[in-house]
Amino acid sequence: MNKVGVIMGSKSDLPVMQDAIDILKGFDIEVEVDIVSAHRTPEKLFDYGKNAHTRGFAVVIAGAGGAAHLPGMIASLSPLPVIGVPVKSSNSIDGWDSVLSILQMPGGVPVATVALNGAKNAGILAAQIIGSSDKCVLDKIVAYKEGLKIKVNESAKNL
Amino acid sequence: MNKVGVIMGSKSDLPVMQDAIDILKGFDIEVEVDIVSAHRTPEKLFDYGKNAHTRGFAVVIAGAGGAAHLPGMIASLSPLPVIGVPVKSSNSIDGWDSVLSILQMPGGVPVATVALNGAKNAGILAAQIIGSSDKCVLDKIVAYKEGLKIKVNESAKNL
Amino acid sequence: MNKVGVIMGSKSDLPVMQDAIDILKGFDIEVEVDIVSAHRTPEKLFDYGKNAHTRGFAVVIAGAGGAAHLPGMIASLSPLPVIGVPVKSSNSIDGWDSVLSILQMPGGVPVATVALNGAKNAGILAAQIIGSSDKCVLDKIVAYKEGLKIKVNESAKNL
Amino acid sequence: MNKVGVIMGSKSDLPVMQDAIDILKGFDIEVEVDIVSAHRTPEKLFDYGKNAHTRGFAVVIAGAGGAAHLPGMIASLSPLPVIGVPVKSSNSIDGWDSVLSILQMPGGVPVATVALNGAKNAGILAAQIIGSSDKCVLDKIVAYKEGLKIKVNESAKNL
Amino acid sequence: MNKVGVIMGSKSDLPVMQDAIDILKGFDIEVEVDIVSAHRTPEKLFDYGKNAHTRGFAVVIAGAGGAAHLPGMIASLSPLPVIGVPVKSSNSIDGWDSVLSILQMPGGVPVATVALNGAKNAGILAAQIIGSSDKCVLDKIVAYKEGLKIKVNESAKNL
Amino acid sequence: MNKVGVIMGSKSDLPVMQDAIDILKGFDIEVEVDIVSAHRTPEKLFDYGKNAHTRGFAVVIAGAGGAAHLPGMIASLSPLPVIGVPVKSSNSIDGWDSVLSILQMPGGVPVATVALNGAKNAGILAAQIIGSSDKCVLDKIVAYKEGLKIKVNESAKNL
Amino acid sequence: MNKVGVIMGSKSDLPVMQDAIDILKGFDIEVEVDIVSAHRTPEKLFDYGKNAHTRGFAVVIAGAGGAAHLPGMIASLSPLPVIGVPVKSSNSIDGWDSVLSILQMPGGVPVATVALNGAKNAGILAAQIIGSSDKCVLDKIVAYKEGLKIKVNESAKNL
Amino acid sequence: MNKVGVIMGSKSDLPVMQDAIDILKGFDIEVEVDIVSAHRTPEKLFDYGKNAHTRGFAVVIAGAGGAAHLPGMIASLSPLPVIGVPVKSSNSIDGWDSVLSILQMPGGVPVATVALNGAKNAGILAAQIIGSSDKCVLDKIVAYKEGLKIKVNESAKNL
Repeated sequence: MNKVGVIMGSKSDLPVMQDAIDILKGFDIEVEVDIVSAHRTPEKLFDYGKNAHTRGFAVVIAGAGGAAHLPGMIASLSPLPVIGVPVKSSNSIDGWDSVLSILQMPGGVPVATVALNGAKNAGILAAQIIGSSDKCVLDKIVAYKEGLKIKVNESAKNL
Repeated sequence: MNKVGVIMGSKSDLPVMQDAIDILKGFDIEVEVDIVSAHRTPEKLFDYGKNAHTRGFAVVIAGAGGAAHLPGMIASLSPLPVIGVPVKSSNSIDGWDSVLSILQMPGGVPVATVALNGAKNAGILAAQIIGSSDKCVLDKIVAYKEGLKIKVNESAKNL
Repeated sequence: MNKVGVIMGSKSDLPVMQDAIDILKGFDIEVEVDIVSAHRTPEKLFDYGKNAHTRGFAVVIAGAGGAAHLPGMIASLSPLPVIGVPVKSSNSIDGWDSVLSILQMPGGVPVATVALNGAKNAGILAAQIIGSSDKCVLDKIVAYKEGLKIKVNESAKNL
Repeated sequence: MNKVGVIMGSKSDLPVMQDAIDILKGFDIEVEVDIVSAHRTPEKLFDYGKNAHTRGFAVVIAGAGGAAHLPGMIASLSPLPVIGVPVKSSNSIDGWDSVLSILQMPGGVPVATVALNGAKNAGILAAQIIGSSDKCVLDKIVAYKEGLKIKVNESAKNL
Repeated sequence: MNKVGVIMGSKSDLPVMQDAIDILKGFDIEVEVDIVSAHRTPEKLFDYGKNAHTRGFAVVIAGAGGAAHLPGMIASLSPLPVIGVPVKSSNSIDGWDSVLSILQMPGGVPVATVALNGAKNAGILAAQIIGSSDKCVLDKIVAYKEGLKIKVNESAKNL
Repeated sequence: MNKVGVIMGSKSDLPVMQDAIDILKGFDIEVEVDIVSAHRTPEKLFDYGKNAHTRGFAVVIAGAGGAAHLPGMIASLSPLPVIGVPVKSSNSIDGWDSVLSILQMPGGVPVATVALNGAKNAGILAAQIIGSSDKCVLDKIVAYKEGLKIKVNESAKNL
Repeated sequence: MNKVGVIMGSKSDLPVMQDAIDILKGFDIEVEVDIVSAHRTPEKLFDYGKNAHTRGFAVVIAGAGGAAHLPGMIASLSPLPVIGVPVKSSNSIDGWDSVLSILQMPGGVPVATVALNGAKNAGILAAQIIGSSDKCVLDKIVAYKEGLKIKVNESAKNL
Repeated sequence: MNKVGVIMGSKSDLPVMQDAIDILKGFDIEVEVDIVSAHRTPEKLFDYGKNAHTRGFAVVIAGAGGAAHLPGMIASLSPLPVIGVPVKSSNSIDGWDSVLSILQMPGGVPVATVALNGAKNAGILAAQIIGSSDKCVLDKIVAYKEGLKIKVNESAKNL
């Protein structure tokens, strides 16, 4: 029920997107990973977007670079919350194209955009979305944030 | 339980943020509106962020302009999903400052960023987050998207 | 056979896109105008893109603003040349979002991008594409360019 | 008759522009390659632009970096469709100069601009332009797009 | 002998370029004004550039907007110093296109670029170029700069 | 009394921030270094900001990257002058996010921003602030500036 | 002794810079206002910078637009802390030129830069610098910040 | 009489600026090289600017990076034409700071700006300025341009 779909436009996005997969697994949240290219596999995009909410996904995380249309097109097709990860691909103009083509969605069709290459935060945000109705996951988020604090305090001690 | 907190850094952000309030009310989702300034009321920011998840909020929407720290600081303090709305305030450098200071959060602390002045989408995204575990709200999102389609088709007929 | 499809994401793009329609009509090229929203009417987008080349279109001109996915998604679905017009819509960040989300297409799926709000040039380019295999249209382009020259020379005389 | 001219401002642009040549050859389209510098060989530029349409070219692809004037000047001189490839040369300011000096042509003189370093897409677009009146080439485009799909699906299986 | 050519791509650039004409006339330097469009009158561009140095010009000032090729093409054709004025035209992306397509000339072919809409400074620079070998004009520059100083000091007194 | 607090959002900022520490020690000004993360240790941020002016600090230097909220939040909490150092961290979009999220503070809560990675200048500025009421430190600044001059003159001699 | 110098490059900067003057007067800090143009009155610039620290100034606030050299040149000449206000003048490229030419000072010569048109914050920062060694001014800053809080809370009540 | 002064803000600018020196020597034009830092040697800046036109210079070429004030301050002090070379120094934000702080000079005080790191073009432009009143140098420019053409044509033959 609380499965998260993690998709990306190209296998070359995997090194960036792996962070989302890892963090979700760390929260014991089921993840299903796939490659869906808005520009090269439009039929697969269509099927994925149309059916995501009936296949047990709570959230979809979509990563893409350049003129990145994958997150926005999934958001067009699905009623689920869609998290977009702008990927700084090799042909990107310093990442600006990825960021703007994911972030600047028109009124009516939001994409929850995270930082450039911010797949880790996409995973945490997906967990927070699940956690907003699942006390057990919420508690894990609280513990995770406590862990961040401890790490900073330790690095401060070791200055 | 599925209440949404809508906060903004200044009353001057209200004309933009009203779109989020209106759309959430249209989905029959309870909204609580407040002004919380990261820079002028840091104690209120602290209390708000620390307690949001125990006060019945499922999501917090935070809008701010310029060097916009409100969404990120709430995300720092709360385990809830936080949606950030970059507001193009009068002193903003074409909105770039608002966008980048909300979007580019460090690993560990995500903010779900929407388009510049995209408060309407922030409201829809909050509804989608609630809808991901609430079938009734999900159905309303489906219907809302169907409505968007009908409007476009009608405008196409009237060309 | 040499019909040009002119589509746009929203009726609000029409004042910009009208320039493409007018210039094509001036070249006696048949134009079919429609509103197709990548984000609000994805099924229509799909049908349009899949069938454009069997419906007698030689070229499709697609205009959209913000995170503009319409030109790229038509290019994904159709083997025809697709011309993209970045529209500076009201919520755009000075047009950069429209430009980059149309221009920066990944390898394999080109969009012939023209200047921001450059619908007139999109129309001329469509005519040039038709003219590259149609001597009659090519001659009209030659005459059109001669006309531009004459106008400049006249304005120079009147300095 | 359906020859494509591929020109570039400097031999240093060849590694980028080779992608256009390769893809066109893959479509069995005749290609003629030359170096034409708007700034160092203006007379050659002039001859090339004036005569391209009488020398059997259907399309001209022009690549240049920095203050890139080659595509626009060919478009000024020729009635043919001109495809511009912004090249990220060593002295470019992150490619912005190349992109903007090719894309932002004035009304009356379009350049079909592709992504930064997007010579491969320039080649595909030239083939699409030829294919818009040549069923045989159109079929090759359809097959090429089918091939893209298969490759993505295979990479998805190997995840 | 010390005539200055002031040219622009379109009559719509005249309100900006008039500042160059006025300041040169104030220095009693002969000015010849013309409209030369790189994109619409390429033959005139060619003639102008090829012959400027034999027609008595010491300097050419060229203003253009958007993908501004006029200054760079004159610099390609003429051995004279060419001053480029980026004009913020109505279709410009905030002037960045004009600035970059004039400033970022490749090695071998300089354009002396002034500020966006900085035609006044183009006029002064042309006078300084003439003044570098003409003591009488140099003295006028010295006096002009003295005048600037006096005006600032007066405005400081009136605070 | 004239102690300077140097804080940073992460230990990874230390190589940049060390320049501030070194230059202050060179001026014999007491420095206290700590790691305070606005996003991961908000309680520590709060304590630090609230108490800095009663703990003997004259100035606080805060460095952070990406969506950099540390300098602005300290400025929100403390009446002391706060110097912000935008750090070009690994995930930054070329430093623009760090610069704008520190510089563009709203009216009422200034941060004295220095150049990207400009920690050395942050140290000098802190010394100048102390020097504005401490003749001994002012004299050291004068001597430091004299030293800069000598070094330039020597490098000129060795050309 | 704790006098603040407020200077600007042109009388046209006064409407922006007045905010600095007003806020300093509100803190009962003596202000001396002048127009000093780096580019038109270089001798006055030199005298001002060389002598500011012996004329009783504790801080200098310098505002300028475009290629803004005034703050940096005063910082070059004076050992005092210099606060730079980037002014969005009529010829500025959206303020980026003013911001970058003040902010990006080389190592050794800091300018404490505030937000675009942020003269009010420049005034507060000057007061904070004085307050860092003057308990009476520090108390006023504390009170001022308390006042900001009260205003926000009142506007929140009136929602 | 036709000497060119080449100055730079720091010895680290020499690898870039050497191109200007080399090209001028190739034209047999006398060059005098010096390091003049606007921010670290303001007195030397002042002397240099005030006296350049009486010391036999026809043109001054000034290169600097970051908040680059050297070209503009020399232009403030001297009636000679000043050519500015934006240097992409190690701390620059991709060169934008150098470009804008040199290019965007206020009305009255022009700097002839060349491309980022475009010292070679600065040298050619200086030669063109001298050539505008010196037939012998003009002829060398003509020959130099002819040489550029020959090189391009040869590289075209070797494709």
